[in-house]
Amino acid sequence: MALIVKKFGGSSVATPDKMRAIVQRVLKGKQEGDKIVIVVSAMGDTTDELVSLAKQITSKAYGREMDMLLSTGEQVSIALMAMAFQEAGQKAISFTGAQAGIKTSDAFNKGRILDLEPNRIMEALDEGNVVVVAGFQGITGHGDITTLGRGGSDTTAVAIAGAINADVCEIYTDVDGVYTSDPRVVPNAQKMKEITYGEMLEMAKLGAGVMQPRAVEMGSRFSVPIHVRSTFSEDEGTMIQEVCSMEIKQYLIRGVASDKNVAKITVLGIPNQPGHAYKIFSMLADSHVDVDMIVQSVRVAKEGVTDITFTIARTELPAAKDILNRLREEMPVEDILVDDKMAKVSIVGAGMAGHPGIAAGMFGVLGDNHINIEIISTSEISITCLIGEESVDTAVKAIHAHFFDEH
Amino acid sequence: MALIVKKFGGSSVATPDKMRAIVQRVLKGKQEGDKIVIVVSAMGDTTDELVSLAKQITSKAYGREMDMLLSTGEQVSIALMAMAFQEAGQKAISFTGAQAGIKTSDAFNKGRILDLEPNRIMEALDEGNVVVVAGFQGITGHGDITTLGRGGSDTTAVAIAGAINADVCEIYTDVDGVYTSDPRVVPNAQKMKEITYGEMLEMAKLGAGVMQPRAVEMGSRFSVPIHVRSTFSEDEGTMIQEVCSMEIKQYLIRGVASDKNVAKITVLGIPNQPGHAYKIFSMLADSHVDVDMIVQSVRVAKEGVTDITFTIARTELPAAKDILNRLREEMPVEDILVDDKMAKVSIVGAGMAGHPGIAAGMFGVLGDNHINIEIISTSEISITCLIGEESVDTAVKAIHAHFFDEH
Repeated sequence: MALIVKKFGGSSVATPDKMRAIVQRVLKGKQEGDKIVIVVSAMGDTTDELVSLAKQITSKAYGREMDMLLSTGEQVSIALMAMAFQEAGQKAISFTGAQAGIKTSDAFNKGRILDLEPNRIMEALDEGNVVVVAGFQGITGHGDITTLGRGGSDTTAVAIAGAINADVCEIYTDVDGVYTSDPRVVPNAQKMKEITYGEMLEMAKLGAGVMQPRAVEMGSRFSVPIHVRSTFSEDEGTMIQEVCSMEIKQYLIRGVASDKNVAKITVLGIPNQPGHAYKIFSMLADSHVDVDMIVQSVRVAKEGVTDITFTIARTELPAAKDILNRLREEMPVEDILVDDKMAKVSIVGAGMAGHPGIAAGMFGVLGDNHINIEIISTSEISITCLIGEESVDTAVKAIHAHFFDEH
Repeated sequence: MALIVKKFGGSSVATPDKMRAIVQRVLKGKQEGDKIVIVVSAMGDTTDELVSLAKQITSKAYGREMDMLLSTGEQVSIALMAMAFQEAGQKAISFTGAQAGIKTSDAFNKGRILDLEPNRIMEALDEGNVVVVAGFQGITGHGDITTLGRGGSDTTAVAIAGAINADVCEIYTDVDGVYTSDPRVVPNAQKMKEITYGEMLEMAKLGAGVMQPRAVEMGSRFSVPIHVRSTFSEDEGTMIQEVCSMEIKQYLIRGVASDKNVAKITVLGIPNQPGHAYKIFSMLADSHVDVDMIVQSVRVAKEGVTDITFTIARTELPAAKDILNRLREEMPVEDILVDDKMAKVSIVGAGMAGHPGIAAGMFGVLGDNHINIEIISTSEISITCLIGEESVDTAVKAIHAHFFDEH
């Protein structure tokens, strides 16, 4: 007897036939006494279609009304999924985010789950229902509908699993687990049996697309084991959890990630006085442009000025450029350089902390391949190098070979 | 400065262009200080499409999950309408039925509004918003979404107008008002400037499709003036209100209505003992089959048995037949006859009460046209005759000519 949350994405529920297939799979795997919560996204392209409808009406397709609109996509899915379970003879009930007790901040389009009151879910499970919950949505303290932003359904599933103390949260996806690197780039990348929250979080932040960082964070906070597995096969996928088995721990490096959504901005000749760097980054923050890597360098040749280089997501470059143009008017700077052909390559592994040779190994591989490193940043369990976009696939392959082919 | 509720149906909001047209019309008519609530239905064929999707999943396209599904249609409309107002520079906010405070009974698919707490609507109006509310939906005491059944958006609009004490509730429709008879049948039917709730309720119940009886009832209960008018013209339509002007009161007859959705059932040879008629009608009521006209006749020739004839909506005939078949097994009856080619023709008018000649006039016209009357039923402000469907248009024309062409 187990308490399980299963999340299915939009492509898994795109048609009535696919919904029926999920119902069959869930009921086949259901043991006597199992309690099951299903979290679903909007069917197929529904969200895109709703966005397109909004864009025919307004140039401002965001804010409160956008969440009112988009949340209908998941609501359609849950109603149909509940009907599909009922049609198969299984008692079922659907809940919107609000009905499932998912309270969020009032940041429309990117709400954060603040609280989850699972009373109705638990009651419905106790009454023998499969409970079908709308992913990606919640409700503010004022009763307004919010959505959770990209990957929000994963976050919903993990948050519910945490709130009801589920045995496991299964994330069904179109890949069969988390790999040591992107299999499209590195054909001999290996599927991991296990990975820690910390490692997965780094992998996700550094470009491994299989799960959103916020969902992993939520799993870590509530110690929810997350099983990433394939919608299309019965095979075990990858288990994300706090502590991994000894067998796994011996690996110093768990994965090689890369991210091409990177732009580098250099502001030259900033007066080397307190407050100027703060000014730049506070202006970016006010416009919700996230800054990733930062390097400041004082010039030896010219006293009193400094250069600052930082990276942002390439998709945020238009917003950043607006801000930088305003900056020129407010602050004496020599020049602002933008390079939108950058990428990051990273190695991740909780075991690398006590092994200084790891970083040297990574830099050596890049050097051997004549790849110039522009910026290096490190965390306790990762090392990231900023390199030219054109070299990133070569870099990933070479680094993966260096750390994994030797084992 | 006025407080106005305006309701637009699905065909009026079928496309972004049509939504923009409504926004322009509403803003053009809006005086400084006016407070406006817009109630909308689902866009165009959305509801039909959702029903069709459900039918691909289940043979039981009704109940709680169906309301979860269908309510998304109106939610899409309100979000887009609010965006359209904002795009036109008008502050606006959308509310689902739940957010608008519309509490219903827990009868899914045909919820009745039990209470309406308009706090959020009033606050949003005070903040200068046009408030856009989803028609056709509400929420139960348990937080489950309900829909209000056919014509539900009219009921939503009138209920809100009552709760906020609006000056008027405008129902925009594809006809430009209420006519003395169906203009497709009677080309010289006249548009009424005014009609009382009671008269409109009878007209609606007796087949005048322009408004649902429940919405009219709601208007009467809260004394909300209802203005039925055209989406496509600026002309005044018909005002439904408690007391009409003297000019209007002089008319004895206000309209001629007809309804072809009628079937006649005759149960022959029922034992003439207490409890048998009760049995028949309680079985029908248990299955939600509404009985309209009823005639019981004791036979002179054969003692101890009676015949009962009654009418139901033709659309409920399949359900009724099931019940009647069970009846044959439980009660000794001679035979059950069904005639599904019947119709009703009615005259309505609050002024007819003190004028016995009116009924005689109606029967005379039918007799002159060789139309046989099967059953007659009367209320304080209407007379209805059951006749053969094939004669109904002739009857309506002749009765209309008799009562209106003389004036």
